[in-house]
Amino acid sequence: MKLNLGPTDRMYPMPCPLVVGGTMEAADALAVAWIGTAGGTPPSIGMALRKTRRTLELIRENGDFTVNIGPTSRAAEIDLCGIVSGHNVDKWELTGLTLEPSRSVSAPIIAQFPYNLECRVTNEVELGEYVFVIGEVIESHAEESILSQDGKTVDVGLLDPLMYIPGSREYRGIGPKLADAYSIGKQFLPPKE
Amino acid sequence: MKLNLGPTDRMYPMPCPLVVGGTMEAADALAVAWIGTAGGTPPSIGMALRKTRRTLELIRENGDFTVNIGPTSRAAEIDLCGIVSGHNVDKWELTGLTLEPSRSVSAPIIAQFPYNLECRVTNEVELGEYVFVIGEVIESHAEESILSQDGKTVDVGLLDPLMYIPGSREYRGIGPKLADAYSIGKQFLPPKE
Repeated sequence: MKLNLGPTDRMYPMPCPLVVGGTMEAADALAVAWIGTAGGTPPSIGMALRKTRRTLELIRENGDFTVNIGPTSRAAEIDLCGIVSGHNVDKWELTGLTLEPSRSVSAPIIAQFPYNLECRVTNEVELGEYVFVIGEVIESHAEESILSQDGKTVDVGLLDPLMYIPGSREYRGIGPKLADAYSIGKQFLPPKE
Repeated sequence: MKLNLGPTDRMYPMPCPLVVGGTMEAADALAVAWIGTAGGTPPSIGMALRKTRRTLELIRENGDFTVNIGPTSRAAEIDLCGIVSGHNVDKWELTGLTLEPSRSVSAPIIAQFPYNLECRVTNEVELGEYVFVIGEVIESHAEESILSQDGKTVDVGLLDPLMYIPGSREYRGIGPKLADAYSIGKQFLPPKE
């Protein structure tokens, strides 16, 4: 039997990258689970940010941001960047994470995180206490060590991305591969003659 | 060493629910991995849909949609709904999935999927060949069998949600719990005196 649970913001599961705004001189990082791909042509990322966030101020000042996907081994650093505010503390000093310049945007990328997207803001949508920010992904970086043998595709098992689970407020990693997409569903199609 | 991989729409990982548009009489379902929470006040979901999709037509006709999170055991049904078009085939007949009326919107929910969100469209953002659709989540449903002991929170282990991995184009499930959020990061804070 299904129970009604009322309005909710809980999706399962959620990615949990660090979003960086600012410059090499003054940057802030925020753990953002309310984020996902927003389009393919041009490739775009969208994310919900609370209006009070220091990272949002920096994104608006420079018109760009980076998305940095960390491995599960960095759960503590990512968590810290969701707990405290860049208005009050220096997250870089606390966590020991360091920055590298991006190629095409002001916002730097996180050196220790193996997958990084450079994004230029294209749209903002006001939604109550949040702003939904959409950015075009104009460059991406990956550590050689997390690439598949083709050298062009991220091996998600090597990336080992952190996920956030709302409700129970916990972090998890990904499980093993279950099936090929664009393939396993074909069993429902009538046989070709 | 980091390599530049160019513009990309690949985030890791992605959820992979079925989004339903239409009515009990005429509905279509689409597997949507480009989806996530878009705000908290009001609770909102955002998703990128290719403009040619039948499901988008139905969402625009009625102004609402549902998000239906399926377990990994339904990977084949979800995959089928991303492979074929509702313009040409009846996905309900092919997969055997059935519909139940929603409480507050025209779009029905999928009976066999244990977590369902009812959404009313609030915003659309045009992004090239895609439309980013934002909807307010006005009701949610969960099977009693996937709830935690408090009866109010989804137990994500029991839900066992399917994820999509771009690039390698595969489906995965979630791994075990690694850490408590809003907690593990506190190790970086100075001790309170």
